[in-house]
Amino acid sequence: MSTPPVSRIAILGATGNTGFEAARILLAHPRVQVTHVTTTSRVGVPLADVHPRLRGLTDLVLSPFEPETLAHEVDGVVSCLPHKASMQSVAALAKENPQLKIVDLSGDFRFPEVADYEAAYDIEHVAPDLNPTAAYGLPELFRDEIARANIVANPGCYPTASLLALAPLGRAGLIERAIVDAKSGLSGAGAKPSPITHFTNANESVQAYKPYAHRHAPEIGAHLARVSGSDAPLTFTPHLVPMDVGIFATVYIQVNKEVTEEEVRGVFDAAYGDEPFVRILPPGVLPNTKHVAGTNLADLNVAVAPDGRQVTVFSAIDNTLKGASGQAVQNLNLLLGLPETLGFPEVPQADRPVLTA
Amino acid sequence: MSTPPVSRIAILGATGNTGFEAARILLAHPRVQVTHVTTTSRVGVPLADVHPRLRGLTDLVLSPFEPETLAHEVDGVVSCLPHKASMQSVAALAKENPQLKIVDLSGDFRFPEVADYEAAYDIEHVAPDLNPTAAYGLPELFRDEIARANIVANPGCYPTASLLALAPLGRAGLIERAIVDAKSGLSGAGAKPSPITHFTNANESVQAYKPYAHRHAPEIGAHLARVSGSDAPLTFTPHLVPMDVGIFATVYIQVNKEVTEEEVRGVFDAAYGDEPFVRILPPGVLPNTKHVAGTNLADLNVAVAPDGRQVTVFSAIDNTLKGASGQAVQNLNLLLGLPETLGFPEVPQADRPVLTA
Amino acid sequence: MSTPPVSRIAILGATGNTGFEAARILLAHPRVQVTHVTTTSRVGVPLADVHPRLRGLTDLVLSPFEPETLAHEVDGVVSCLPHKASMQSVAALAKENPQLKIVDLSGDFRFPEVADYEAAYDIEHVAPDLNPTAAYGLPELFRDEIARANIVANPGCYPTASLLALAPLGRAGLIERAIVDAKSGLSGAGAKPSPITHFTNANESVQAYKPYAHRHAPEIGAHLARVSGSDAPLTFTPHLVPMDVGIFATVYIQVNKEVTEEEVRGVFDAAYGDEPFVRILPPGVLPNTKHVAGTNLADLNVAVAPDGRQVTVFSAIDNTLKGASGQAVQNLNLLLGLPETLGFPEVPQADRPVLTA
Amino acid sequence: MSTPPVSRIAILGATGNTGFEAARILLAHPRVQVTHVTTTSRVGVPLADVHPRLRGLTDLVLSPFEPETLAHEVDGVVSCLPHKASMQSVAALAKENPQLKIVDLSGDFRFPEVADYEAAYDIEHVAPDLNPTAAYGLPELFRDEIARANIVANPGCYPTASLLALAPLGRAGLIERAIVDAKSGLSGAGAKPSPITHFTNANESVQAYKPYAHRHAPEIGAHLARVSGSDAPLTFTPHLVPMDVGIFATVYIQVNKEVTEEEVRGVFDAAYGDEPFVRILPPGVLPNTKHVAGTNLADLNVAVAPDGRQVTVFSAIDNTLKGASGQAVQNLNLLLGLPETLGFPEVPQADRPVLTA
Repeated sequence: MSTPPVSRIAILGATGNTGFEAARILLAHPRVQVTHVTTTSRVGVPLADVHPRLRGLTDLVLSPFEPETLAHEVDGVVSCLPHKASMQSVAALAKENPQLKIVDLSGDFRFPEVADYEAAYDIEHVAPDLNPTAAYGLPELFRDEIARANIVANPGCYPTASLLALAPLGRAGLIERAIVDAKSGLSGAGAKPSPITHFTNANESVQAYKPYAHRHAPEIGAHLARVSGSDAPLTFTPHLVPMDVGIFATVYIQVNKEVTEEEVRGVFDAAYGDEPFVRILPPGVLPNTKHVAGTNLADLNVAVAPDGRQVTVFSAIDNTLKGASGQAVQNLNLLLGLPETLGFPEVPQADRPVLTA
Repeated sequence: MSTPPVSRIAILGATGNTGFEAARILLAHPRVQVTHVTTTSRVGVPLADVHPRLRGLTDLVLSPFEPETLAHEVDGVVSCLPHKASMQSVAALAKENPQLKIVDLSGDFRFPEVADYEAAYDIEHVAPDLNPTAAYGLPELFRDEIARANIVANPGCYPTASLLALAPLGRAGLIERAIVDAKSGLSGAGAKPSPITHFTNANESVQAYKPYAHRHAPEIGAHLARVSGSDAPLTFTPHLVPMDVGIFATVYIQVNKEVTEEEVRGVFDAAYGDEPFVRILPPGVLPNTKHVAGTNLADLNVAVAPDGRQVTVFSAIDNTLKGASGQAVQNLNLLLGLPETLGFPEVPQADRPVLTA
Repeated sequence: MSTPPVSRIAILGATGNTGFEAARILLAHPRVQVTHVTTTSRVGVPLADVHPRLRGLTDLVLSPFEPETLAHEVDGVVSCLPHKASMQSVAALAKENPQLKIVDLSGDFRFPEVADYEAAYDIEHVAPDLNPTAAYGLPELFRDEIARANIVANPGCYPTASLLALAPLGRAGLIERAIVDAKSGLSGAGAKPSPITHFTNANESVQAYKPYAHRHAPEIGAHLARVSGSDAPLTFTPHLVPMDVGIFATVYIQVNKEVTEEEVRGVFDAAYGDEPFVRILPPGVLPNTKHVAGTNLADLNVAVAPDGRQVTVFSAIDNTLKGASGQAVQNLNLLLGLPETLGFPEVPQADRPVLTA
Repeated sequence: MSTPPVSRIAILGATGNTGFEAARILLAHPRVQVTHVTTTSRVGVPLADVHPRLRGLTDLVLSPFEPETLAHEVDGVVSCLPHKASMQSVAALAKENPQLKIVDLSGDFRFPEVADYEAAYDIEHVAPDLNPTAAYGLPELFRDEIARANIVANPGCYPTASLLALAPLGRAGLIERAIVDAKSGLSGAGAKPSPITHFTNANESVQAYKPYAHRHAPEIGAHLARVSGSDAPLTFTPHLVPMDVGIFATVYIQVNKEVTEEEVRGVFDAAYGDEPFVRILPPGVLPNTKHVAGTNLADLNVAVAPDGRQVTVFSAIDNTLKGASGQAVQNLNLLLGLPETLGFPEVPQADRPVLTA
């Protein structure tokens, strides 16, 4: 019996939170083999020494990033580098091998317009020619573009939760203005210790940050404009709540005509009814970050104001999975022509791929 | 040297969360003596057996509620009974002794209009004649009414956080519509075990509940209308976040004319600049529930949208103190003619009462 | 290409915590199909309505327990029933089909001596004839017995963490006396709301319970005696700490001769060096429940007192997985002749089964 | 009416966790005025900018440490400096003003023998002449010495919880060997961000650290030896559990003769029956860190093994209060001749000081 073909994958910047989660998923993925994990700072260190949860599960050792050879030794790349470093590495790889499949978790290729990126990140884009070739990796909205692309810009965690909530009404041309009030667990604040993430500061605490000033606001706005064809005013306020993982987005949408809850549910069912990773909850059952934690699922539900002029959409994801590395693997599956749900334990029975040799 | 006069206080329904907090504060209050703690279910049990934190600190024993005698044996009453039971008890006491000073923590006397109460609580009011005599116990907004009243309706936890954020712009006639997105710790869900409060359900979890349907929404609306003289549309969405105490309200106010952050700060400084329990934080420093936990303080700050048409007000309180029993003691102090800050350790130096015999 | 053979599995008592975890794992297991989920109280309810995390992932509906038919319709059974109910159900199934493979998560078949069980659980055993046929399901200690058995008594969560720590030195005849100080997350307290599990009681709290009186103490003692051939005094003290999952056992062993850390590490390496689910951490790196949470892994390490007369063994597991449903699936794999690691994402590369048709 | 005399107090090193707690308590203390808060790194910064919880409550500004003047401008000093820096500052102050009352929260004066200190802290003591004059500030054990001293070495958090549990049986000459298994909240790890205190590392986690190697072990041993007159073997293992404050010590004492629970309770009642800050809980009611959090109280209880040869003592304190700054104020009260319970809200009714002018 022949061995099934396996794709070789490199994880760039494997020492951070998203690198850990990508490695964790891909190490158990039945059609993928992680062959390279790169770093700029810890070359030669076993990956499991950096991420103690991986101890005993892998012998991978962190290596330097050498695009000339790497671009020809792997079938796919997942970049977990910070912005700027990521576009530099992606550009170097694409130059060597333009057909290489790359999922970039940084913000570098997420903006349709380079100018918007440069405004949001206050930095010059180093690969403006590649930017238009990158697909925005929210498969539930842009699956076809992703499947055709070589470079996929994996969405931000807040934009994933927000756009899944906003897009259906946006496409229906119903949004007059919108407010996204988002609550995130602390893993969203990164792996580096800081006063914000210091346990006794963050525990038993809720706080908002960067009102009217978070980089994810223009990212949400740009793609909402794409699907809705208009520029409705959008407010985005992120908050930190004392838990490890999860984003809960409460999205207030002032609609431009009176709607009923039934109509709105119809719009969402039409948008996501066949999606393996989106669950529209039954009427009256609201999402809970706990019910999606550890999975690549997004849970959604809606409520409509008594006067029919406002819709509240509730959206819950695991920010480290559907909001980052899980979605990256979902995108990688698409790029590699594999079943989109491969490698994820929590999948509807109908979407569970049957593997044969 | 003469002993300073001490007021005798009864706590009704002392077995719940608010009863515990009221007892905890009043047991250490220098001008008050708790003489009665009542219960319907646990007569004869030492209070400290119900609340282990009080063990060794008090010999008080739970007694039945006997209004005929109680009304003449105490100077003040703090009712921590649930709604309905509370108005029945308050009415019985007021009948016996109309001058008795009563702070009611239930929702029973919080609505200016009995009809609004009956709609929100789906119950008939048993003391509609007393209702107009009750002051709404938010001293920062209604201090004079409170000082003149015998019955004070202590505000709900969410309304306290929300109205402190809304009232200044409401009074200024600036609110076109408002959305309150509130995040509460689990103590807001009461002392009775339930699936919602089960640790492994609530921990590592964020969820919304009762969108467009929470009783605190009409309470906020009624008093916002009083101070602003208009009925701007108001949306209120409560959420549970995994912590013991704290409410963080993010209040989005669409204003009816362009404003600057400086103007808005001016409005808030004018409203609360002299308040001992309200802190307007410096520009750019946002509230954090942790910084008010365990205190009777409310922290506020504002941010203004780049186009000047939306103000976001951030408001943080400890729901069990400023949102419940702390504010009740603040009101009790006012009713008894004591310094408003008496009994609270966290008080600005200038407002710290000096006690003499 | 032929479809691989799949075993049909029933989960008894699928509405609790262990039932949820067993279902979650088995729904993603590549060689198993869950065909029955039974209940006494919620017949006809979809399993996903009871466990919201499973919504959309399965269409299974809870059915009554009917041993006469069930015993012939499935290949394996995982009983998540409480003690007493479990032995009744196991006995009924075994009577119908003595060859049926059964993993019982209750305490009913965990004691070599029925009398010890009856003393610990204060109840009469209903199947004393079956008891000697049941293997104690700690594969790292009793793999051969398990593979030969039809009924496997899945160990308690505390005994799993404790016995993995105690057994190597027990077998070596070194234990003079031992103290197990165990810290558990709240999932160990079950799915039913109670004052103990009420969020605001359990959060920000550490407490001990049942000193010298927990049922897991004689369970640990009985199996430690089996492997060590002696009855060293054993103290077991469980504690609750504010987290969802995890047991951390700190095991103090007074040894009957002077030992070095190197010798003790040698004993542990010999015991577990080839085990896929046990990791002996490098010198100086202590276990952390977080590093095993969500996995079937047990992490261990040792420290030796300067005088060489006391060994402290540190042991960490996820109580819901290696301490319950994960180990149940590990045992089920053994009973069904499947690779022991099948169905678990976190497995050493060398132990990762390659599936072929 | 005359103003009551007020003591002027300086807090050295007021920018850390213990400095914050000392300031918080002393700012509300009725017979104390904090006049100086010193720092080496943030001179000129308002104290409330460093500790946001104090915002609005104090105008104190951090000043440099100038012993020549300070020693004559205050009545008492609370040193929250780290070890080494603390003994240098204490020595400088004592040189200027040998009668100055000083409470030192560092480890510098905690060891009866300078050599033991130097071994534990791997540093030379700079004031070996002062060391014998310092009292060990555990008032429940050494009240008389404290009241006579000018310098008090405030005990470590773990030693406080441990020695309160060990001392009664130690004095009774009953201890053959002892094991202290201690669980601490994260505030014990300090105010400085690190991987250990990073939220997503510490949350949902239990881990042990420094087995057989923590500095608090010899501190416990030295004072246990003082009260018991013997050197019983002592093991101390600290753990971190995911909560802000609290230490729970489970203390296993092998006794040298058979005892009953009644006898042991008698020993503890005799030791602590009149103590305002120690509560011996009723039989069967175990301590819980939550019940002492935010207070200066220590809760204790005991359990005795069926064979009468082992006693388990359970001890719970708030590590930041009874384990640090609360106890420091208790000691300061003793040094200044004030009622020992002054400044603490949670005090038994009988011990509540009545203040008069």
